[in-house]
Amino acid sequence: MAGTPKYYRQKLRIIDLIADAAPGDPLPTERELAERFDTSRTTIRQALTELAMEGRIERTQGRGTFVAEPPIIAVRQLTSFSEDLDGARLDSDVLGISEEPASPEVASGLGIAAGSAVTRVDRVRRRGGAPLAHETAHLPGSYARIAEELAARGSLYRTLREAYGITLASVDDEVATELAGPEEAALLGIEIGLPLLVVRRVARAADGAPVEYTRSAFRGDRFRFRASASTD
Amino acid sequence: MAGTPKYYRQKLRIIDLIADAAPGDPLPTERELAERFDTSRTTIRQALTELAMEGRIERTQGRGTFVAEPPIIAVRQLTSFSEDLDGARLDSDVLGISEEPASPEVASGLGIAAGSAVTRVDRVRRRGGAPLAHETAHLPGSYARIAEELAARGSLYRTLREAYGITLASVDDEVATELAGPEEAALLGIEIGLPLLVVRRVARAADGAPVEYTRSAFRGDRFRFRASASTD
Repeated sequence: MAGTPKYYRQKLRIIDLIADAAPGDPLPTERELAERFDTSRTTIRQALTELAMEGRIERTQGRGTFVAEPPIIAVRQLTSFSEDLDGARLDSDVLGISEEPASPEVASGLGIAAGSAVTRVDRVRRRGGAPLAHETAHLPGSYARIAEELAARGSLYRTLREAYGITLASVDDEVATELAGPEEAALLGIEIGLPLLVVRRVARAADGAPVEYTRSAFRGDRFRFRASASTD
Repeated sequence: MAGTPKYYRQKLRIIDLIADAAPGDPLPTERELAERFDTSRTTIRQALTELAMEGRIERTQGRGTFVAEPPIIAVRQLTSFSEDLDGARLDSDVLGISEEPASPEVASGLGIAAGSAVTRVDRVRRRGGAPLAHETAHLPGSYARIAEELAARGSLYRTLREAYGITLASVDDEVATELAGPEEAALLGIEIGLPLLVVRRVARAADGAPVEYTRSAFRGDRFRFRASASTD
């Protein structure tokens, strides 16, 4: 292809090289690849970075580069009211729960004035132990004892329903893609720059009042979202 | 931050540098930035590549690097049956229409045997002249005179309905993120490696038979998808 950058041609050559390799097989070093393909280590490094971002290879500090396990792709029904994923509950690590003033983005999502008090619930969602998403929920106002209530139940929606009498009646999900920055990459155990699938959700009670504004950042190499509709 | 890569720190410094600049303002050259921030041109280049991928700057061959226009974010309702976007029709460039054997992916989407004949409609969708998506539709079987029928109407769904009596009754959309390869980047006028929002759609007729399998790759820096649901 005319105009194809150098690193991309090397990337395709490395894909060929590992096509028949098994997960866990080591790749040659950067230096060896550069010699074999008669190019610079910088070019090889750029190709390897993109392959790592796509989840094809894994780089381990001090140990080298290996063919990655094929990704387990998880699919979530967008607009699902449950916190389930493929029927399997996600585990959560609670990173923090705090009351804070609403940022402009959060205030706009919740239809409140910027600076109003919101309760922030910051979690890493796991499936089978591996981090899959970083999720930050914002609830308008104060939620007394929410840390204990949430710890007792695990599910935020179940906690809202059982401990606070709040039932969701509708949700709006908006999906975007963003590149992982250093903090989110560290939380998710991925390379900086991996594309994330980011869902921003506004959930409403039966009277239409927003009760939740949540940003969820899913690993782009492990996730799909699904949405269905019919004319019936 | 500990563990933050070098290029990411330079990226944040460049973001600071252009925070007050107007769209179209030139950035210093790679060499000037490297000198000013006391780092290598390779590091600066990596920072600029990510800023270009995020649509913050634009690089023009031979002319230099400029602060980009703020993105116009288009939002499409997932599972919409129309081909509209925010009420405004997308224009299309037809890249090709052909009959071909179904690939395994297409065959699986359409519920037919791999190698069965499908009609492929390959288009670039534009809004206000700018390319926004690369869309490849696959329809099972033969569609006589589809190039002329589509040219007369513009909309594929309208063509299916009016010229072939096919009405969609349901759609399943699956959203993923993928990195743009050289060919798709050239079609969309973006940098290689920009994250794309990719929707794979299976559309069905009233009897449940798949009538369309389409892969649509949207520029990730210009698009959002929305999905809504309620318990009513």
